[in-house]
Amino acid sequence: MEEGEMRENLKTILRSKKKEVTICRDYGIVMIGERINPTGRKVLQEDLKTGKFDRVRKDAVAQIAAGAAILDVNAGVPRVNEPTLLVRMIQEVREATDDAVLCIDSPNTSALEAALKFYCRDGAKPLINSVSAETVRLSDVLPLIKGYGAAVIGLASSDDGIPKTAERRFENAARIIEEATKTGIPVEDVVIDPVVVTLGAEWNSGLAILKAISMIVEKFGVNITMGASNVSFGMADRPNLTAHFLSMAAVVGLSCPICNPLEEKERIALQAADLILGRDEYGMKWIEGFRDRKGS
Amino acid sequence: MEEGEMRENLKTILRSKKKEVTICRDYGIVMIGERINPTGRKVLQEDLKTGKFDRVRKDAVAQIAAGAAILDVNAGVPRVNEPTLLVRMIQEVREATDDAVLCIDSPNTSALEAALKFYCRDGAKPLINSVSAETVRLSDVLPLIKGYGAAVIGLASSDDGIPKTAERRFENAARIIEEATKTGIPVEDVVIDPVVVTLGAEWNSGLAILKAISMIVEKFGVNITMGASNVSFGMADRPNLTAHFLSMAAVVGLSCPICNPLEEKERIALQAADLILGRDEYGMKWIEGFRDRKGS
Repeated sequence: MEEGEMRENLKTILRSKKKEVTICRDYGIVMIGERINPTGRKVLQEDLKTGKFDRVRKDAVAQIAAGAAILDVNAGVPRVNEPTLLVRMIQEVREATDDAVLCIDSPNTSALEAALKFYCRDGAKPLINSVSAETVRLSDVLPLIKGYGAAVIGLASSDDGIPKTAERRFENAARIIEEATKTGIPVEDVVIDPVVVTLGAEWNSGLAILKAISMIVEKFGVNITMGASNVSFGMADRPNLTAHFLSMAAVVGLSCPICNPLEEKERIALQAADLILGRDEYGMKWIEGFRDRKGS
Repeated sequence: MEEGEMRENLKTILRSKKKEVTICRDYGIVMIGERINPTGRKVLQEDLKTGKFDRVRKDAVAQIAAGAAILDVNAGVPRVNEPTLLVRMIQEVREATDDAVLCIDSPNTSALEAALKFYCRDGAKPLINSVSAETVRLSDVLPLIKGYGAAVIGLASSDDGIPKTAERRFENAARIIEEATKTGIPVEDVVIDPVVVTLGAEWNSGLAILKAISMIVEKFGVNITMGASNVSFGMADRPNLTAHFLSMAAVVGLSCPICNPLEEKERIALQAADLILGRDEYGMKWIEGFRDRKGS
């Protein structure tokens, strides 16, 4: 936290054809909306299987209205052609939101390639979710990112699985950053996800994650994302636990969480973090957020 | 945050005749209940002026029940003999709570001396709130602390007033620690308060306070307190802002805030902080807190 110790805070610039978003912890936290993801959402899975996109469009609009600057789009429905569905979902979301900036989310390299080909043809620069430090993922995904000029989330897991310690998370992040820059991807276009696991399974993982973020930010200055709600999976009082995890992670450098902008406690946490960390001049955003909550 | 960089976390051990409390950030956050303080509480002021102590006793019991380990006791009522009133309040609180551990709070050296003489005669060791880095306070208060074997809160303000920067807060804290140890007070018996001001007056003071805590903890390993609710004075949505300030300050080393244990959001923040910082084995305290909230 001492001045002069930290690296410069890097800027990750993403864009659609019409919009641009700069992620940088000097300016404040950027929310990546998590809702357009059929994992664990049976009704949405059914919609997508039967070619209905109303819910996707509604989720997209609602998340932008609630303050998301970027929307994660995931098309992981069992027994459905993922490349085709992902491209269609991207198209629907763009139309519904006047071309929101996207985070394209798939573990399937073919789906990512189809989505990149479709989304980047008119100059868009998405965030890709994600590449890990697994050897096969690095060699498959990084050339695609480079080829399409996209930015990428580097998930700090490796061939050894999900790391237990801050140090292993740091090493995995460092490997991804090294391989990405070797491939020709600028370091500011790598956003690190330290891998959040539930405290229900590993009660002492919270501190390891905060330490990992701190180490990665001090060394590389890169932006940091996370699937914040994972921390509270299976736990009592999930909203409050997730909310405090978000504001506490912001202290050490979280800059663009993948979270639920429709969850009031998460929005409050991020607005409080920006104010307390000196990124909300005269508290104007805090007051605006308060008025929105009272009005809603 | 990196391992090996931090000083050992010091232990401040306080006691009444019957009870003992150890403050150390390795173990978890200790709440110092702020309620027994007539400042801004007109009804309590009237009670104290007319010799009624029912409310003091009730506040004492309620705060202990809500999880406070230490109770702050302040007798600052205009035009009332403070030494006499403070001693009486201490007596009432001890009786009402089966001898809770106390934080004796006064800017008045005579009142502190009377309270110390009364409270320490049977081996009690209170926390004294507070000494600042003002020259006259240092020379008046530190010999008293040493003489009665008490512990003391060092408030990081000085002859120049309330500091604006992290660096000035650090310097003031360092001066208090230096003078205290010269006087013969062990360093672990100095608890630093970085001085919290409202974000309504200084919108960028939050980051300065967090940086100051981080610098003080890294250099000295001492315990850290703060009047957390000051941060949100005059602001919209005080409970949420204070709550996130508490959990965010815990990341950098806050260990014993002076706060309101009756405010649910503050309790949740501190319980979440302990869990996320790895001081709540298997999340048992979190689950217990959740059950208490559901039951209340």
